[in-house]
This record gives sequence, structure tokens and C-alpha cells, in this order.
Amino acid sequence: MAMMNQDYLKDMPNWVKNGGDSDDVVISSRIRLARNLKGIPFPNYAHEQQLETVTQQVLQAARERSALGEFIPLKVEELTPNERMVLVEKHLCSPQFVENPHLRTLIVDQEQTVSIMVNEEDHLRVQTLLPAFSLDSALELSNQVDDFLEENLEFCFDEFRGYLTACPTNVGTGLRASVMLHLPGLTLVDQVKRVLSALAHIGINVRGFYGEGTEAYGDIYQISNQVTLGQSEEELTKNLQSICRQVIEQERNIREALLKESRTQLEDRVCRSFGILSQARLISSEETLKLLSDVKLGAELGIITQVDKNRVKELMFITRSSILQTIIGKELVPVERDYYRAMVIRQRLGAHGASGV
Amino acid sequence: MAMMNQDYLKDMPNWVKNGGDSDDVVISSRIRLARNLKGIPFPNYAHEQQLETVTQQVLQAARERSALGEFIPLKVEELTPNERMVLVEKHLCSPQFVENPHLRTLIVDQEQTVSIMVNEEDHLRVQTLLPAFSLDSALELSNQVDDFLEENLEFCFDEFRGYLTACPTNVGTGLRASVMLHLPGLTLVDQVKRVLSALAHIGINVRGFYGEGTEAYGDIYQISNQVTLGQSEEELTKNLQSICRQVIEQERNIREALLKESRTQLEDRVCRSFGILSQARLISSEETLKLLSDVKLGAELGIITQVDKNRVKELMFITRSSILQTIIGKELVPVERDYYRAMVIRQRLGAHGASGV
Repeated sequence: MAMMNQDYLKDMPNWVKNGGDSDDVVISSRIRLARNLKGIPFPNYAHEQQLETVTQQVLQAARERSALGEFIPLKVEELTPNERMVLVEKHLCSPQFVENPHLRTLIVDQEQTVSIMVNEEDHLRVQTLLPAFSLDSALELSNQVDDFLEENLEFCFDEFRGYLTACPTNVGTGLRASVMLHLPGLTLVDQVKRVLSALAHIGINVRGFYGEGTEAYGDIYQISNQVTLGQSEEELTKNLQSICRQVIEQERNIREALLKESRTQLEDRVCRSFGILSQARLISSEETLKLLSDVKLGAELGIITQVDKNRVKELMFITRSSILQTIIGKELVPVERDYYRAMVIRQRLGAHGASGV
Repeated sequence: MAMMNQDYLKDMPNWVKNGGDSDDVVISSRIRLARNLKGIPFPNYAHEQQLETVTQQVLQAARERSALGEFIPLKVEELTPNERMVLVEKHLCSPQFVENPHLRTLIVDQEQTVSIMVNEEDHLRVQTLLPAFSLDSALELSNQVDDFLEENLEFCFDEFRGYLTACPTNVGTGLRASVMLHLPGLTLVDQVKRVLSALAHIGINVRGFYGEGTEAYGDIYQISNQVTLGQSEEELTKNLQSICRQVIEQERNIREALLKESRTQLEDRVCRSFGILSQARLISSEETLKLLSDVKLGAELGIITQVDKNRVKELMFITRSSILQTIIGKELVPVERDYYRAMVIRQRLGAHGASGV
């Protein structure tokens, strides 16, 4: 288990490559399960030897033949700083997981749909990440992985409280369901804060593109359940699903209204963003997401026809700094990143004519 | 002499259509002569009958056969408000001239190079306007027109003071030479104010695109001589020419330095402006000039290759509100203007693909 395979690094994960149900608004759906091994202290209280034991047991379990295909183990300490960030930008692990890489291993399947963080806050964080609005499939897949692991691992489980976890907010099912929503319409009419803050009152967390405390660059919001106790996995998931459906409907209604009432202004905004992206020679990560958000909206509404909407989603992904460096194949200082980012965008948007690349 | 011929209105004047010496920096060159008829009070003090007499005498003189081709007389009062503004935007007369149209006539040649304002501040304001850096030719042509008119008109002339004019600043030669300079390089490095305010100390006036008190939209500045007394026409013109040459050199040096020291930043700026212009669906007159200024700079420096630099100069002209309305063929409210302006720009820049026009 040496350096990550570069091709593997460049491969886009499942959630980026594909679309599906309600992909006009939903980027991806995720189910995460928190599990801990019986008889070993939670990672924050465990010795090195105990953490090593956790890793070995989980690796052993993951190596078992199963219908789930081959899992690739990645020792975080053996990865370069950029490779670590690629995993975060692929949403395969949390930023916290790679910040302190000692004795932490990430296990990922070939399609980059299932990932298991070993020795994050809990011994295991099992995540299934699918494109578009697909919480049901993600939950089903999570349960399969959970069952498969449980054949060889004994988890901390209390008949009364359910699965025990390092942080009390995860006790019970240990489940967090989350959905990544693209809400440019609600943002444009300045209603996104009102809609999303209302969700906080009914047990829903709202975060930016890269989890807790991050800005909602590109009008992308991640919403997830706060409560993990007192409801079944299915109830928790159904609840989040029905809330998402409402937000999706609100976003679609706003888009319809914008098309009806201020089509030219909307076209102007969307086309200007497309024009800048097609021509810029230097562009930051933040500006890219901001402009791509407009272009994705335009592509969904049929205003932008010269670029496929899935291509726009891919661009949101491959323009992230670490992914970009992997594509270019070398470490880049910030101004170089802005240069190559602009180049990659121009190539993918198929702009031609102007001098330079 | 009824309404102006619409085709004639749409025709681009000579200074817009063509290039020439130093047209990387110089838009146009102009010589204006102030003349008054002997024995008739200056316009501000004349009765209606006297103003009518001036008009008849000048028209009579202009109708004489000559090597200068046919002159077209336009009674300002008979023009629509938009037609009047077209004349201003073509730089064929001053804004003040059409503001108070009573008993005022504009006489223009077919190429729209020579124009004579009758009964502006002086009885006659003879203007020759040529593309690029061509003060010598403009002066020569002015002298021809002046001589031709003098065959049939007697001008107020004092052996000692020269030509007498309504405003003392014009007494003497009655000549004002002016040059329209495009100075995006000096603007970009924030030196344009320093350079131009230094000119004020050596008897040079600096104005914006549309004369006295107007903003320098599009980084276009008009510089002209303040003094008209005590020097010959040739001396005044030579003086302005040599000052222009210095400003042109400074502008070119800055452009070279920008290309050498921050090529990518310059390309980024220029290409973004091109991208916005190619895609916008609504655009104001001011933003258009601002962005076209970047694109013209880019075209001059070979950064923008997909559009001819003379086409960019034409776009600076045809996107002016009244010219635009003439091209579209109807009166437009401001938001419609922004819509059609964006449409005309997209058509001329050859952008294709996006939906809408």
C-alpha cells in the first residue's frame, strides 16, 4: 500500500459522473453510519496499539470476498498533502480526517461510492455517496456494507440506546443522511436563508459545499438530519427526503417564476457568466463555483445549450484546487492554479479562437 | 429640406469607418474654425431676421459648385429628437447646438467629414473630422473649406486681433485643433490623470468622449488647444501634434510594459471583457464602452484575434443610444436599448450558440 495510483486519483467519483432523479437541483445523496468496535476505547481515548488493532480488524473484514467488489485501502500518512486533499474534494472523507493522518486509513471501493474512514472520531465511519436524489439506494447500500462488516466485526451496541458513538449526537442509529442541493434560484431571489433557517427548527442541519463551517460556494448547500436517536434508519431517511422534496419544489417554482417574469435578466446573468468562464485567463476557485452555478442553472433551464449540464457538474468538481493539480500533474502555486483552472475550463467549455491556450 | 434620409443617418461617418496613422491610439482628429459674418451681431445678440439672413448667406455659399462635393443642409428644428442626437453622437455638431434648435442649420458633406454649424455660438463653426492621427490633412481641408466659403462670404476680421468671435477664447485664428485618444494603458496603470493634468499647464484642454464636462467613458480622451491667439494655424496645430506624439508614445510604452510584465493579467482582463460582450443579453452604454475599450486594446496588441480592430471602433460608435435606435429603426425605452445593444454587439462579434438572438 504505497502512493495512490494517479489514474485512480484522476477518476471522477460516481456522484460527479452521473445524474439521476431530480438532478436539476440535487447534486448528490449520502448516508453515513458511525460504528465502533466492542472492547476498544473510542479513537480519542485509545492508545496507538489499540488504533492499530482497529485498523487491522477493519482491513481484514473489508478484504473478505463479497458482492460489494474490491476495496482499496489508503493509509493517510503515506499520501502526499495533495492526495489527501483530493480525497476531501471528492467527498470521500472529512477534512478533519486528513488533518491528523496518524494511524488513519481510508477504505474506498472502485467506483468511489463507498468509503470507510477508520479511526476518525469513531472507529468506523461508513459512507455511501450517490449522484442525484437517491437516499433510498444510499441507505440500502449502507445497510449492505454494514451487514457485510458485521459478519466479521463486533460493534458497540446497546439494546436501549442503539449504536454507541464518540459524540452523543450520533448515538442511536449512528446514521446521518445528507443531500447536496444546488439552489441558485432561491439564492437569486434572496430567499435561501429564510428557507434554510426554517429547517433548523425542525431538526435539520445546513452546511456549505465542504461540510461544517464552510461557505455555500456555488449556491450549493448540504442539508442533513441532526437527530440520530429515537427513530429508525428508514424514518430518519424518509423525513429528510420529504423535507428535500419541499425544498426542491420551492427551488423549481422560483426558477419557473424567474423564467416567466424576468427571462431576459436571467439570460443576461447566465450568459455573462458563461462568457467570462469561456474567456478568462486567470480564475479563482470561488469565482469559478459562483459562475458555474449560473451556468448550471442556465443549462438546466435550456438557456445555455452549448454545454451539457453534466459537463458543468464535472467542471464544478475538477476545478477544485487539488483535483486540478492532479489533472495538471504537478504542484502549483496559487497564481498557477488560477491560470490552469482557467485553461481547463476553456478547454471543457469548448471555447476557441482567442490566443493563448 | 424635410426629415433626414434614414440611410444617410445610418451611414457611418468617415472618422468611424477608417483607420490611419497611429490608429492604435488615436481615434480621430478634428480642426474647427469659428467665423462670423461682417455686419451682423453674434448669434446671441442677433434678431431672428438676422439669424435667418446668416443661414441664407451660408447656404448660398455652400451651394456654390466646388471641388468639395455636395453639401447637405439639415434644419435642426425639422429633425426628430433622435435624429438630432445622432448628429451629436457622430460628432458632427456640439450637444449645445441641438439643444436649442431654433434657426440653426447643420451643413454636412456626403462623407460626413466636413460639417458647418450655422448660428451656434458663432455664425459659422466649420469642422473637419478625419480618422486617426491626421491633423495636417484636417487643417488643409479646413483651409480649403474656409477659402471656398470666403469667396462668397465676408467674415469679421481685424488686422490686429484676427478673426473676431463671440467668445474671447476663440479670437485670433478661431481655430481649435483636437484629437481623440484611446488611453487604456495609461488608465490601467492609473497614470492617465497625472499625464493629462500636466497638459493643462501647457495650454491644453482635456475632455471626455462627448466634449466639455463629459466623462472619459471607454478611456477615450479629447485633447485640444486652449489658445487661439498669437500663433498661426500651423503653429497651433504643430504644437498639439507634438504633444499628442508624446502622449501616444507614453501610451505605447505602457502597453509594451504591460505585455512584458503582466501579460496573463492583461489577457485575462481583455478576454473577460470580450467574453461578457459576446454573451450579455442586456448592456448599458457605459459598460459597453468600458468593455470595448479593453477589447480594442486586446485587438491592438494581438490578444484578441477573432475580431478586427476596426470593427471594435465601429462598435464603440454604433452602440451609442441614438445611433442604435436608428439601426433598429424605432424609438426604444432604456431597457429595450440595453437589450438591442447587447444583440447588435453579439451579432457583430460573431458569437453564436447560446439561445435567444
